[in-house]
Amino acid sequence: MAKKKTNIESNPKKSKNDVAVGVVGSGSFATAIVKMLVENCKVVHWCVRNEYVKGAIEQRGHNPTYLTAVNFNLKNLKLTTDINELVSACDIIVLATPSIYLSDTLEKMTCDYQNKIFVSAIKGIIPKVNDVVAHYLRDEFKIGFRNQAVIAGPCHAEEVAMERLSYLTVATVEDEVSQKLVDIFNSDFIKMHSSKDILGNEYSAILKNIFAIGAGIASGLGYGDNFTAVFVSNAIREMETFLEAIYEAPRDVNESAYLGDLLVTAYSLFSRNRNLGNLIGKGYTVKSAIQSMNMIAEGYYAANSIYKTSKEKGLKLPIVDTIYGILYEGKNAEKQFKKLTAKLD
Amino acid sequence: MAKKKTNIESNPKKSKNDVAVGVVGSGSFATAIVKMLVENCKVVHWCVRNEYVKGAIEQRGHNPTYLTAVNFNLKNLKLTTDINELVSACDIIVLATPSIYLSDTLEKMTCDYQNKIFVSAIKGIIPKVNDVVAHYLRDEFKIGFRNQAVIAGPCHAEEVAMERLSYLTVATVEDEVSQKLVDIFNSDFIKMHSSKDILGNEYSAILKNIFAIGAGIASGLGYGDNFTAVFVSNAIREMETFLEAIYEAPRDVNESAYLGDLLVTAYSLFSRNRNLGNLIGKGYTVKSAIQSMNMIAEGYYAANSIYKTSKEKGLKLPIVDTIYGILYEGKNAEKQFKKLTAKLD
Repeated sequence: MAKKKTNIESNPKKSKNDVAVGVVGSGSFATAIVKMLVENCKVVHWCVRNEYVKGAIEQRGHNPTYLTAVNFNLKNLKLTTDINELVSACDIIVLATPSIYLSDTLEKMTCDYQNKIFVSAIKGIIPKVNDVVAHYLRDEFKIGFRNQAVIAGPCHAEEVAMERLSYLTVATVEDEVSQKLVDIFNSDFIKMHSSKDILGNEYSAILKNIFAIGAGIASGLGYGDNFTAVFVSNAIREMETFLEAIYEAPRDVNESAYLGDLLVTAYSLFSRNRNLGNLIGKGYTVKSAIQSMNMIAEGYYAANSIYKTSKEKGLKLPIVDTIYGILYEGKNAEKQFKKLTAKLD
Repeated sequence: MAKKKTNIESNPKKSKNDVAVGVVGSGSFATAIVKMLVENCKVVHWCVRNEYVKGAIEQRGHNPTYLTAVNFNLKNLKLTTDINELVSACDIIVLATPSIYLSDTLEKMTCDYQNKIFVSAIKGIIPKVNDVVAHYLRDEFKIGFRNQAVIAGPCHAEEVAMERLSYLTVATVEDEVSQKLVDIFNSDFIKMHSSKDILGNEYSAILKNIFAIGAGIASGLGYGDNFTAVFVSNAIREMETFLEAIYEAPRDVNESAYLGDLLVTAYSLFSRNRNLGNLIGKGYTVKSAIQSMNMIAEGYYAANSIYKTSKEKGLKLPIVDTIYGILYEGKNAEKQFKKLTAKLD
């Protein structure tokens, strides 16, 4: 199973797809997605952050900062730093920037994009509108749900780089779009499943980052594996409560896009969200914990947005309340977790 | 949270319970249970394996082999090696031997035990009858469900030794028994919840050992964290399918006694079951993997029993089938897991 780090041209004889697909973003998950797509597509358009990144990829054949072991054959890539060039050239656009940078990128979009499919691989809240990507695209850009999809599932980019088997879920309302996306992502190391639950998949990917902060706080405070198991068992039930209140769709939260994604994040020592929580649990102030990290963890914004939505809906989410209180109301993590322990089962 | 390893007399002023309670077994979980009970009970009867263990505890104040850091005050213990002495003296008997030794112990029982409460903290199949403890007690000893309880939940004994917060579930049909058990187990580091789902709790504790073998095989074969998350998400759904078929009771498999126990075992590097699987995944034969371990992992027997029950009931449990095929039919782990990956989602 643990394959060598092969060049993506490892299967050159496979007949490739000529769907016009592009990826926006140049972080690790964006790079992983480009790697998935070049398995199946003749050309993948790739809009990276700036000329430095573009030049570095063109010169070295790999992303200079993220997943540097993944070597691309440049003839499969069409690099740009211009969102309009990418969107104009593509029918399917996969958004994979950090959530805080998406609005900066999309606001530059002046080309016609009304018949394009926008696929969000972003797992976070857009801080500017304090809302999820699906709503942001619909409200700010008039991109309806029929022209949207969400990619979810437990997927460390680093394991995609190593071609370790991963399962992704594509959520769309249109069967035709779903099939097209399944076809361009499925490969020896990626198994795609489809779902109709756009908002449920998007929200679960966001909620799990809040719970990962919580798992980190618990660990930092000295709680052990027995407690973490209880914490995660409660977290998945809070997720179910939230999703049921927000969006009706047939769903089993124990499918991998929901529970699996929570597990891979809450149990990962490499999760930024879990690390942020761990620092807070160890006694850092929220401000100093954030400052000590290169990038703000997505769960930080998520906690604010999800907490407010849960209050509007009158939901009882003790873990979300606890994390919000610690992150935004200056409450003491040790005391808040002590109180929380009485509410878990 | 991470408390120092205190003597169990740390809270000497608390008024203690005079319930006549005993523990059978001298492994790590039995020792952890004695530690829980001396928090609340004036005297805990403890039936250990042999005179050596009894003498060692009397001399040193701790179990000579397991959880050696837990020091007992001997005035709280009434040690014996005689099951009849223990059962005669107690109203509540907690069974905490390895499942393979239970029948040897209970077959020596000649005293009157008909009005006693038997609490199983055993997470395994009784090989002799190829069935769960609840059925074994009922069929072989005429101990009805009203005189039985099951203790379940994610609980590494080592963390109990360190007084790290753990949650346990007691499953009984009688409210009065439930309350009594909650009272004698609840403490600063143990939170008890009650349930009516005797067989569901017992079977889930058994099933999770099979799934832990599977998680170990996957790891040994080189599958990564992304796959493990998918595997566990499928495992909990198989558990739900099995429990629904076997015993009707109100239950949410995402409660900590079900999902939590699965998580703490499948993600633990110290689980014997996971380690057995890991060796098999790395290429050891089942026989040599078993021989290299001091004790046969409970999940080995469980796989045989659960597989047969699932076939009798006509259930579709691809993970259980896969583990059974590898353990009992000499099937190749790598090929079987490759086939299994197509059945997961």
